[in-house]
This record gives sequence, structure tokens and C-alpha cells, in this order.
Amino acid sequence: MAKPSFNSLAFFLLLLSLLSPLSQSRRPPQFLRKPSRNQNPQINNNVVNQQQYKSYSYETRYFDQILDHFSFDDRLPNFRQRYLINSDHWVGPSRLGPIFLYCGNEGDIEWFAANTGFVWELAPRFGAMVVFPEHRYYGESMPYGSQKEAYKNASTLAHLTAEQALADYAVLITDLKRNLSAEACPVILFGGSYGGMLAAWMRVKYPHIAIGALASSAPILQFEDIVPPQTFYDIVSNDFRRESTSCFDTIKKSWDIITSVGQKTNGLDHLAKTFHLCGKLESSQDLSDWLDSAYSYLAMVDYPYPSEFLMPLPAYPIKEVCKEIDNLPDGTSVLDRIFKGVSVYYNYTGIADCFQLDDDPHGMSGWNWQACTEMVMPLSSDRNSSMFPEWDYNSTSFAEDCWDEFRVIPRPTWITTEFGGHNYKSVLETFGSNIIFSNGLLDPWSGGSVLKNISESVVALVTEKGAHHLDLRASTMNDPDWLVEQRASEVKIIEGWIVNYNEKLVFNM
Amino acid sequence: MAKPSFNSLAFFLLLLSLLSPLSQSRRPPQFLRKPSRNQNPQINNNVVNQQQYKSYSYETRYFDQILDHFSFDDRLPNFRQRYLINSDHWVGPSRLGPIFLYCGNEGDIEWFAANTGFVWELAPRFGAMVVFPEHRYYGESMPYGSQKEAYKNASTLAHLTAEQALADYAVLITDLKRNLSAEACPVILFGGSYGGMLAAWMRVKYPHIAIGALASSAPILQFEDIVPPQTFYDIVSNDFRRESTSCFDTIKKSWDIITSVGQKTNGLDHLAKTFHLCGKLESSQDLSDWLDSAYSYLAMVDYPYPSEFLMPLPAYPIKEVCKEIDNLPDGTSVLDRIFKGVSVYYNYTGIADCFQLDDDPHGMSGWNWQACTEMVMPLSSDRNSSMFPEWDYNSTSFAEDCWDEFRVIPRPTWITTEFGGHNYKSVLETFGSNIIFSNGLLDPWSGGSVLKNISESVVALVTEKGAHHLDLRASTMNDPDWLVEQRASEVKIIEGWIVNYNEKLVFNM
Repeated sequence: MAKPSFNSLAFFLLLLSLLSPLSQSRRPPQFLRKPSRNQNPQINNNVVNQQQYKSYSYETRYFDQILDHFSFDDRLPNFRQRYLINSDHWVGPSRLGPIFLYCGNEGDIEWFAANTGFVWELAPRFGAMVVFPEHRYYGESMPYGSQKEAYKNASTLAHLTAEQALADYAVLITDLKRNLSAEACPVILFGGSYGGMLAAWMRVKYPHIAIGALASSAPILQFEDIVPPQTFYDIVSNDFRRESTSCFDTIKKSWDIITSVGQKTNGLDHLAKTFHLCGKLESSQDLSDWLDSAYSYLAMVDYPYPSEFLMPLPAYPIKEVCKEIDNLPDGTSVLDRIFKGVSVYYNYTGIADCFQLDDDPHGMSGWNWQACTEMVMPLSSDRNSSMFPEWDYNSTSFAEDCWDEFRVIPRPTWITTEFGGHNYKSVLETFGSNIIFSNGLLDPWSGGSVLKNISESVVALVTEKGAHHLDLRASTMNDPDWLVEQRASEVKIIEGWIVNYNEKLVFNM
Repeated sequence: MAKPSFNSLAFFLLLLSLLSPLSQSRRPPQFLRKPSRNQNPQINNNVVNQQQYKSYSYETRYFDQILDHFSFDDRLPNFRQRYLINSDHWVGPSRLGPIFLYCGNEGDIEWFAANTGFVWELAPRFGAMVVFPEHRYYGESMPYGSQKEAYKNASTLAHLTAEQALADYAVLITDLKRNLSAEACPVILFGGSYGGMLAAWMRVKYPHIAIGALASSAPILQFEDIVPPQTFYDIVSNDFRRESTSCFDTIKKSWDIITSVGQKTNGLDHLAKTFHLCGKLESSQDLSDWLDSAYSYLAMVDYPYPSEFLMPLPAYPIKEVCKEIDNLPDGTSVLDRIFKGVSVYYNYTGIADCFQLDDDPHGMSGWNWQACTEMVMPLSSDRNSSMFPEWDYNSTSFAEDCWDEFRVIPRPTWITTEFGGHNYKSVLETFGSNIIFSNGLLDPWSGGSVLKNISESVVALVTEKGAHHLDLRASTMNDPDWLVEQRASEVKIIEGWIVNYNEKLVFNM
């Protein structure tokens, strides 16, 4: 019998970086996020299709979409946008049946549909239609006919932007409603992570399209200097320190050791052996990045019950990682401890014999493009508060790296110009309405999110022990009370939006 | 001494169609707005510069602007956006000096600056800075280096859209404020006609950039089926009927007469002679369009005092037109009456010996492009209520005409998808704030505007006898009380926005 290939595990890692749009790891300023984190979604899809997708029932449809909504360039082709739709529970236009619209983020929409059980579970209760449109340039929704053509260069990637994606959703849902004579049916937006950012932004930019938005784990403030750049890594670090100071210390110590071992004769081979790598290690930085990713993702998916969102993991996996690191016998080396700890993340099932750091050196992920154009989120690592190596965000070298990789110049101030940010409190207080910002404080992205109520209807639902868009996941038997309560609050608020909308509609008739 | 050239008068007409963005005249479905209404703004500028611009004091600056804010196409060049700025009265960042931002519309920005005296007069009172950015593709703000290159074809015109223009303003003002450390200073938007639409839309789309908007004569509802398509011509017609039923009847009769005379042998020559045309008349439709324009523009500028906005005109010029039409001796032909009436518009000063209908058959105005892409405003003329020939808007032939002229396909549902419209009341009621929609009911564009208060801070200021963005003009000794009161209300409301903003800011500090 063939040994299980660890490509599949690697795929999950790659998929993770693809699907956790915000997984922009700490990295030396001279490097972009490594190509190893980039992966052809088509390939991922295959893996995921076979292994991960839950069987929510929906119809897959395609919509002929305009590539540039904001210009009329006759040279641009249209493209086929995929969307998933289910009307089984919809009570229809006559009863103002709501439409639940999930704002697809940077990955295959079927994967998001499979991991957003909350929306599916809610539909029968609300008599709602469910629609999951796919984000352009991901999954099957590729301009220029294929991922290869769409990702060819800066000119073909040009229209991979959040504003275009929002316009896609606006055009799609408007057309869908018109065809169903459902113009009056209220639309509620859902989204997690980057999808949560899209949901919040769409509510603000398209208030005539959607009456409210649940934006889960949406770091809309992670731009420019709105939040301190070290927030992300501080939270990851605190998640580990909370479990164990010695675990935190061990990890903090490990980076220098990895670097210094790597510099020795045969040091890289020694590292490769210690960490059970399948292939040769090219530089100690590659190993550090691999570990950095594991810690960051662990913080994001530090869920209160066993899960398989990114990797098969136990409940509160950071606790388990730290147990492994701490509980080895006295005298065990730092690197052996680290390996044992990180194996909880990369090999919880124990089926991996070796690990591959870098699967697709020639890949280009869409999120890397987005991070190099609009989604410029400065991340740093603080010498004192972080367990990661010290690192300052440097916009110049970031721009140089983006130029080298994509021949594109980032616009780091564009997102706040287009969507706001610096004065978000006063703006949303007097302007917006009907947005829920939900966050779990274990999630490192919570540091860039809205954590306090802004007005009566722009509210923050925060759970101390929650992680990355946990609330959007399907309910389980193991859900702690605070999660059940958070979801109940969300349901109640959404109900309020709909009741309010219906009342106003009747009043205005 | 040379006879005064009537090119200059014609220029004003052309300029008018250029500057009254919404001057999309009734026309047979098979024709686009005639090229004669299109004019090279550069040439207009010269004329206008010499004759019309008032001497408000400002500095002219230029800003390096991105051509496509919503994509990252590396093939696109930047362009130089012109803006006018005056800080003489600005009290500066420390005292939170407001910034008055006029949303430039489809024409030379100096012309708008000269005709928006209200903003200049308000600046000292508010200690405000005044900024007039020019709309891309107009005046000097030409992509590709020149108007000729910018207007070359659909690919070069592609980025002439309202969303790009709004993004220009957002980027410009954000940069300007940052450079002045004036991030906290409140921005108030102003705009008239299409500029008023931009002001209202910018307030809704960029609430983090501007705290309020005065949108004067902004027909944001003149799209799809939100208002009946015959509203525009019904209002024009009512403006005439109000003055005199017989005047209305004479005009209504004239169209068939013109057509039938035009079909006779030498009929076109007869028409040309009757209407003192300088050149040969190619078709009776050209004459009808010329008259149609005059009536429509007269309705727009039916101001209560003598003005020279478009043409030198007496107070309430429609009254004067009808006097001329009605007061000719019994037995005067309908066409002679019409000529006498329309001469009030085209030749009030009496210096014109003949009229030229068509000055620039090869011109392409930017507004025609905008009307053929996003700004698709269906206009019809009703058999019974209108004094114009019956005419139904036909979207198919409109699209064909646009294809013939620009090789572009209109997106008639895009504006309402992007900016809303159908459900504007309920949306603005629960979402927006701080918008004044000001309108005069004589203005035919008032039919597509917001005429009723929507909420406490989204309000309509309507004057029964006002015309097209009269309130934005400089005050005069002849201003009627209702106009003085309208402006006073606007000032009071804007003061309220600023006071409110400052209080909130202090509170949040």
C-alpha cells in the first residue's frame, strides 16, 4: 500500500493561506509572501472536493458578468461568475422572503459554502433564499477563460479588486431579484474574514441593495496606521502566553536558534532532519515561515471543539501545542520541542511521515495580488510583546517586492479613501446602520476589527474565547454557551432588521 | 467694422448644452443628441474666458490623478487634474476650518466657479477653504494629454464615468487634507445639475470624506422608470402654459407646420429664411431640435432677474417669449410668431443677424458619451400634456444610436445598481444623513429630483418659482425673498452640520 502522500496535507496548508485571505504572514521585508503559499485553486478544489465539502444542497449557476463596472473599455471581455443558490425554504416575493447573500471571498465558493453552516441553518427559520456568489478570479469565476490566462500578468489581473467584486454582487443580486419579481425582498449580507470586510463595505456602499450585514472577523481597520501594525502578532503571541509562559518563551527563543543552526555547516540538513522535511531546506527562513504560519493559523482556528476547517485539530489546539512543547522531558532541545508542538498543527492525525514546505514555487495566488494592490495591511512584530522575531513593516521594500513579483505599484491609502477607516466611529455613528461586527478575541484579526458598539444598530458582538469567524460555522453539539448566545444575538438582531424593514415598507405603501 | 460673428452666440448655445449636462433634448429615437451640441471645451473656454468668467480669486493647481481607481491596469497613464483653490478665508486645521468642495461637472471648471457665487460668498462666513476640482475629460483635465486623444474612441473615453470622477475627488481631497494636516476639517460638498448628482452620490458613497452635501437641481431619480419619462417635457410645457395658453398652443401647433413646410419644394429654404439661419437647412428636424433646445433651456434658466448664465436674458424669460409670440398682430403666421419668440432666447441683445444651428459637426462632447454609457435618462413627450411632438423613449434604438456613434453599449440599469434610486426614500431614511436637495419647480429637471423631506437631515428645499440651480448663483440685488430665504435655510442647515460635527469630534476625543 502506498504511503499517504503529504501533498494532501500541504494542500490544506496552501488552501488555508488561500482561504484565510488575511494570512499574510510576518516575513522579512525583502520578501513577498512566499509563492509556496500560493496555489492554483483548481488543484485545491479537487482535493477539497473529495475530502472536505459538506453536502449543503444548492444549485450551481453562472452569470455573465462585466469585467470592469467602472469603465466602458470595449476591449475587455465579460466573464462567467459562478454562484450557488438554494430556494427550498424561500417564502417568495409575496411574503417578502429574505435573501441571504454570502459575500464570497478569496477562494472557491463551494469551500466557503461548506464552512458557513450558520447561513444554511438560518434559512429555514427565516424562509430565506441563500445565494453564494463566487469572488471574481477565484474558483471557477475566472476572467479570460482560465486561471492561467487570468493570472498571466498585471494587465489581466488588473480587475481583481474588492470594488469590482462588490459591484459583481450588486449587479448579480439586482438581476436575480428582478427576474424573480423579488425587488422588495430584503437582502442580508454575510461574510467572514475578507468576505466579512466585503459584507460590511457592501452594506455601507450599497445600502439600497442590502438592509444589513453580518461581518464576521472582518479586519476593516487593518490599514495604514488605524491600528498598531504589531496587533496581529501580539494577539497570536498572547494566545500562546495565555496557555503557558514557558511555551511562549520556547517559541520566542527558537528563531535565533533556527537561524544560527542554519548558518552552520550542514545546519540546514540538521534542521530538515529535526523537522522531518521531505526535501532539502534551502534556507532557515523557509522553515521559520512555515512555523510562523502554523502559529498564526493556530491562533485563527483556536476553536473550542475539535475541527477540520484547515487541518484536523483538537479543541483549543494552542493548548495542545503548548502541552507538547512544555511536557517533554528536561533536557529536550528547543528545536525538538518546537517540532513536537507544531506537529499538533501539521500532523494531528499522525499520518504524515515528512513535510513539504513548498509545493508550488511558480504559483501566484489571487490574494497575493490583492495584498500588493489594495489590501495593503501593514504587519509588524514587536521586540518585547511578540514571540516572533522583531520586524518592522517597511512600505518601500514592500512596494519593491510587489513590483518584482507583479509589476504593480501598491496603493496603500486607497482602501481608506474608498471605504473609510480613520474616522469610522463618527462616520458609522451618524451614517450607517444595521451592521454586526462579530469577533472572537483569540483571533489575531480581531485586532483590526470593530470591537465596540458604534450605534444602536452598528454593533459589535465579541466573544473572549472565540476565534476566526467561528460564529459562521455550523452549530455542533460541542458549542459552548457563549457561542450559542452569540449566534442567538445575531439571529435576534437580523430578525429585528427584517421586521423593521417590513414595517417601513408597509408604512410607505 | 466687421459684423459681430454669430459663432460666439452659437458657442454659448453649444456651451450651454455642454454645461447643462442634463440638456439631453427630446429627439427622434433614431438620433443621438446631435453633434452640433457637442463642442471642444478648449474652444469654448477661450470664448468664455474672454467674455463670461467673473473674477473670483483662486489659485489654479494640478493633481496627478490615477485614470482607473478600480483596477490596476499597468497600461493606463495617469492624468493631470486641474483644480481651483482659495484659502484666503480658511481658519485652518487648528480651528477645524471647513472645506467647501464643489463637485465639478461636465465642463470647464472655471465656468462653474464663475457661476457658483453662493459658495464663494459663503466661504468668509464659515472661515472655509474653497476647492473646485475639474471633472475628468472636461476643460483642462484631459487624460492622454489632449482632448483630441482623450475623445479618440471608446477605449480612450472608457474612464469617463461618474464613479471615477467621485474617486478623483475623494483621492484629491484626502491628499490635500493630509498635506495640510487638516484631516479633521469637515468637508461640505456642493454641486448643481449633474454636479449636484455627484454631490449627493458622494455624500452617500463617501460619508467618511464629506459630512454633508448641498445637491442643487440634481435629478438623481431620472433613471429607468423611477419617474415617468415625460416629466421633463411636461414641466417645460407647463412653464409655457402657465404664462399663456395661446403661447403653449402656438408652439404645439408649430412642429407639424415646420415638418410639412419642410417637405414642400423649397420648403427648407423657406424655413431657413423665416428663422434667419446663416446657412442652408438640411432637414426640418434640425430646426425643430434648435427650437426644442431653446424652450428647454428657457425653462431651466427661467430666473427671476435678468441673467447671462447661458445667454443674455431678461427676468422670467419665458414670460417674454410668450409675450412676443402672443402679441404679434392677428394674421401673423405661426412660424413668424415662433421666430419672434425664440429670438428672445437666441438674440435678446439683438446683435445677431442670422443663426447657425450646427457649428461643429465633428465634435464629440463628453456628456454625449456619458449619456450613452451610464447616464441613460429616458425622456418622452406625451401627446396630451406636452407642447412638444409626441415621442416615446425607445431603449433599443437608443442603444443602436450609441453603438453607431461611440461603439459602446449603454448600461441603463447601472446607475440605479451603483447609486440606488427605486427605493431611495426608505434607504435614505434609515441610512443617509446631511443632504439638501434644493430645487426650483420651474426647472424641468426638478421632476427627477427629490422634492420631499426624507428624514430630519435629508431634506428638500423647494421653491415654486425657482429654476435650474438658481440657489448656487451669486446673490444679486434683485433676488426675490423666497430665494433669499432658500439660501438662508441652506446656510442654517450647513451650519448645523458643522456645529454637530465639531461637537461630536470634541466628544470623541
